Amino acid sequence: MCRRSRDPGTVTAAQLTLVQIDNYGPWTVTPEPRREMDLQTLQSRLFADLAQYIGNRGGYVFFTRFDNMVAVTNGLDRRDHELLQESVGNRYPVTVSLGVGVDAVPIEALETATRRVQSAGSAQSSDRSEALAGDFRAETADDDVSVAHFDVNDATGKYTDRLNEFDSFINIEQGYASLMRYMREEHGALSFFVGGDNVIAACPDLARDDYRAAIDHVADDADVQLKVGVGTGASPHDAGYAAKHALEDCRYEGTLVEFA
Amino acid sequence: MCRRSRDPGTVTAAQLTLVQIDNYGPWTVTPEPRREMDLQTLQSRLFADLAQYIGNRGGYVFFTRFDNMVAVTNGLDRRDHELLQESVGNRYPVTVSLGVGVDAVPIEALETATRRVQSAGSAQSSDRSEALAGDFRAETADDDVSVAHFDVNDATGKYTDRLNEFDSFINIEQGYASLMRYMREEHGALSFFVGGDNVIAACPDLARDDYRAAIDHVADDADVQLKVGVGTGASPHDAGYAAKHALEDCRYEGTLVEFA
Amino acid sequence: MCRRSRDPGTVTAAQLTLVQIDNYGPWTVTPEPRREMDLQTLQSRLFADLAQYIGNRGGYVFFTRFDNMVAVTNGLDRRDHELLQESVGNRYPVTVSLGVGVDAVPIEALETATRRVQSAGSAQSSDRSEALAGDFRAETADDDVSVAHFDVNDATGKYTDRLNEFDSFINIEQGYASLMRYMREEHGALSFFVGGDNVIAACPDLARDDYRAAIDHVADDADVQLKVGVGTGASPHDAGYAAKHALEDCRYEGTLVEFA
Amino acid sequence: MCRRSRDPGTVTAAQLTLVQIDNYGPWTVTPEPRREMDLQTLQSRLFADLAQYIGNRGGYVFFTRFDNMVAVTNGLDRRDHELLQESVGNRYPVTVSLGVGVDAVPIEALETATRRVQSAGSAQSSDRSEALAGDFRAETADDDVSVAHFDVNDATGKYTDRLNEFDSFINIEQGYASLMRYMREEHGALSFFVGGDNVIAACPDLARDDYRAAIDHVADDADVQLKVGVGTGASPHDAGYAAKHALEDCRYEGTLVEFA
Repeated sequence: MCRRSRDPGTVTAAQLTLVQIDNYGPWTVTPEPRREMDLQTLQSRLFADLAQYIGNRGGYVFFTRFDNMVAVTNGLDRRDHELLQESVGNRYPVTVSLGVGVDAVPIEALETATRRVQSAGSAQSSDRSEALAGDFRAETADDDVSVAHFDVNDATGKYTDRLNEFDSFINIEQGYASLMRYMREEHGALSFFVGGDNVIAACPDLARDDYRAAIDHVADDADVQLKVGVGTGASPHDAGYAAKHALEDCRYEGTLVEFA
Repeated sequence: MCRRSRDPGTVTAAQLTLVQIDNYGPWTVTPEPRREMDLQTLQSRLFADLAQYIGNRGGYVFFTRFDNMVAVTNGLDRRDHELLQESVGNRYPVTVSLGVGVDAVPIEALETATRRVQSAGSAQSSDRSEALAGDFRAETADDDVSVAHFDVNDATGKYTDRLNEFDSFINIEQGYASLMRYMREEHGALSFFVGGDNVIAACPDLARDDYRAAIDHVADDADVQLKVGVGTGASPHDAGYAAKHALEDCRYEGTLVEFA
Repeated sequence: MCRRSRDPGTVTAAQLTLVQIDNYGPWTVTPEPRREMDLQTLQSRLFADLAQYIGNRGGYVFFTRFDNMVAVTNGLDRRDHELLQESVGNRYPVTVSLGVGVDAVPIEALETATRRVQSAGSAQSSDRSEALAGDFRAETADDDVSVAHFDVNDATGKYTDRLNEFDSFINIEQGYASLMRYMREEHGALSFFVGGDNVIAACPDLARDDYRAAIDHVADDADVQLKVGVGTGASPHDAGYAAKHALEDCRYEGTLVEFA
Repeated sequence: MCRRSRDPGTVTAAQLTLVQIDNYGPWTVTPEPRREMDLQTLQSRLFADLAQYIGNRGGYVFFTRFDNMVAVTNGLDRRDHELLQESVGNRYPVTVSLGVGVDAVPIEALETATRRVQSAGSAQSSDRSEALAGDFRAETADDDVSVAHFDVNDATGKYTDRLNEFDSFINIEQGYASLMRYMREEHGALSFFVGGDNVIAACPDLARDDYRAAIDHVADDADVQLKVGVGTGASPHDAGYAAKHALEDCRYEGTLVEFA
C-alpha cells in the first residue's frame, strides 16, 4: 500500500503529542454550568497559545476537539513539553496532561501517545493532573515528517459566494469527514480541518497515486473536489511550508497533486 | 413538521449574523504563504474575541470555518455590530464584513444574512471591506431563541479513555456530521460542534418527538448515542443556559431529551 | 480652585471602579515563585480583556499596578460589573474584587471605591473572593466625564530617535511622575500613563488656566514639555475621543491647551 | 564603583533587545484617532505575546512605553529574532523593528541596540519596516546575566489596604522613579516596574553594598522602603528565578539584601 514516491528506503518518523485538558468536563459544570462563550474563549485561546508555542518551534498543533488536541512535535523535546505544561498551569484555570509517541505511521504514534495519557488516569479523574509521559525523537532527518495540504477546488466560487454559509460549511465538512476516514483507514494518516476549505494531514510516506486515490474517493463519496500539495521536512513546519508551496503549484498548473 | 412542544402559537425569531473575513484566502498566501500556526493563532483569537464581545451581550458565536463564522445575535443592534467591526479593524491585520437576518427558522435568517454579504462583493474581492447590512430584531420576547445542547452519552468511557484520540474524534465527528445534516434538512436548524462531545444547535420551535427522532437518526446513521437538553429564552445565552441545565437533568435522570 | 471653563454651573460625575485581583501576591509565590514572564502575560492579558469589555461599553480602564487597576465606568451598571467578574473567574486562575464610587472629583470616587473593596477584606486575604460593592451613576449627562489627553511635544525628535530607549523612558517617566502628583494634589484628578508619550487624566471640571498651570509645572519640575487636549462627554470614550481630537488641534495649531 | 560580590574576575554579558513598533504614532491617528481601549488592548497583547515568546526561551521583556519595549535576550539568536518579527507581522496590524546589543553594562548594550534601530530610520518613518540589526552573544556563561528583584516592604499593609489605589500607586511610583534613576546613573542598570510593588533590574555585577546604598537612597529620596533579592545565571530567567528565591529569603529572614 505504501509505495513511496521518492527513495524507496526513506521512512517518516512523526512525533505525535496528545494534549488533554485534565478533568475538563466536570470543571465546565462545577458548581454550575459555566457560560458557553467563556468556555469557547478559554478553549480557543488555549489552542492559540499552543499554536504559538509549538508553532514557533517548528511543530503543528490541531484543535481537534479542543479539550483534546493533537500536535506533531518533531523538534520539541521533553523539556519543551514540561515548560509548556508549566506555562499553561500558570495562566489558565485548567491544567493539561501530555503524552508523546514516535512512529513511521502517525496513527501509531498517536496510539502510543494516547495510551500514555490514559495510563495516568481518566480524562475525567480529579486525581490526574499534569501527567507527562513519552519518548522523543532525538535525531532529526530531512524526511521525518510528511505533510499534505488539501483544499477544495474553487470553494469560493462554488460555495462561499453562492450558498448560505451553513450549506457551504456542510459541503466542506462532508468532504473533510470523507477524507479523514479514508486517510486514516488506508494509510494511518491524520487529517485535520484547519479552517476555510483547508485540511492538513500528517502522513506516512505515500506515493502520488495514493493521493490521487484519496482525492478520487472524496469526489465519489462526498462530491467534493479536492487538490493537494505534499511536502517533506525535518519538522512539521518545514514539511507543511513545502506542502503549501506545492499547493500553490496545483493552483497555477491546474493539477490535483503536486509534491514539493 | 414543526409541532411545538409548548404553546402552539409561539414562534422563534432568531437573529443570525454572518461574520466573514474580507479577502482572507488571498491574504494568507501574499506575498508568500504565511506560517500555518500564525494563521491558526489569528483565527482562533479572532473567534475568541467575538465570543467575548457577542457572548457578554447575550449572543452566541460559532467558529464554523473560522474565515466564516456564524453568530446568533438576538439583543445586539446595528451599533453593536458597527463597534465590533471597528474594534476588529483596529486590532487585526484583517477586517470583517457582517450580514444580519431575522427569521423564525435559523437557516432562513442565515440565508438572508449571507446574501447581504455576498451582495456587497465576493469573499475574495479586494474591493469589499467592512460591509455591514442587515435588519435587526427590535423587540425581544421570551421565546425568541431556542437552543438545543447535545452531547454524547458516556463519551469519556466509550471513546476518550479507550481509543486513540483520532479515533475518538472520528466517532464524535461522524455523529456531528450526521446530526448537522439531519437537523438542517428536517428543521432548518443550525448545529455546531463546540468541542469535546458537545453540539449546540440554533433551532426553530420543535417538539420532544422531533428531538427524539434526531437522536434516533444519529444512532442509526452513525452509531453515536446522543442526548439533548432544550431551552428557550430572549437571548441565545438565556436559551443555551437553560438547555445546559436541561442536559444536566438528562444526566441525572438517565433520559435522552429534556426541556428546561 | 475649580474655576470652570464652560458653564459655571456644570459639574462632572465620574464613576470609578477599582479592580483588585484577589490574594494575588501570595498566589504568585505558591507553592514556588511562578515564572515572571507567565505573570507578565497573565497580567497584561487580563488588562487587555478589561480594556475590551469596559472599552466597548464606553468606559476606560488603566493598568496602574496591574494587580490593582483603575477604571472610569460611567455607563456600566451593577449587572455589567457582575458579568465581568464572572467571566474573569471562568477564564483565569485568579478572581477579581470590584469597588465602585461616584463623585464630581475622581479621587473622591476612587476613595469610596477603594474603601468598599478594603471593607470586604485585605488584598492578601484568602477569604475574600469576588467582592462587589458600589453605587452606580443611574442617569447620564453630557458633561459627566472630563478627560484630558496629554502628550510630550516632539517626543520622537527629542527622545526616541536620539537617546537610548531607557533614557527616553526616564524622561517621559519623570514628566509623568510630576504630572500625576500635581494633578492629584491640586485637582483630585487621576493621571495614567498609557504608553508612548501619552498620559490620560480623569479630571473634575477644570479651566484652561488650570491645564496651562499643570503644563508649566511639569516643564519647570521635570523639564518635559507637555501639551493637552480636553474633552467632555457622557462616557469616558466620548470625553476621551473629543480630547484626542483637541490634542490633534494642538498639533496642527502649535498650541498647548485645546478644549474640544 | 563596581565592586563585585563574588569572584572579582567575573563579568556579566547582557544581551539587550529594543523592540520598537514601526511608525506607530502616526498609525494611531490615521485616518482618525483610534479608540483608546483598542490601542490599549493591542499594546498589552503584543507585550503578552513577546513575554511568552521571549520568556519561554529564557529571556525577559519589559513593557516600558509599550511602543518601545526592552528585552534581555541572552539565549535568543538572530533566527529567534527573525521569527518573532515574522510572527508579529503575520498577526498584528503593525510591525516591529529590532536592535540588539551585548555589553557587560546593560545601558551600554541598550545604547548599541537603540542606535541600530535609529540608524534604520525614525520611529515615525513610514519607510522603515521590520529592521533587524545586532550582534548576538554566541557563548553562554553562568554569570552572563545579573537580575535584581526589588519589592516594597509590607506594601499591602502600608498602602494597598489603607490608602485609595491612586495614592498607593503614587507611593510605589515615586519609589520606582527614584530607583530607576539611581540605578541607571550609578551603575548603568535598567530597572523596570513589573506590577504590584515589584521592580526587576538588569544589572552589571554589583556588590551587596551597592544594593544597600540603592535601597538607602530610595528610602531617603522617596520615603519608600525596598528590599532586594539578587540572582545570577546564564539566562534572564535563571538569574531572575534565583533572585525571586533570594527575595523570599529576605521575607523570611527580615533582611534587606540577599544574594542567591
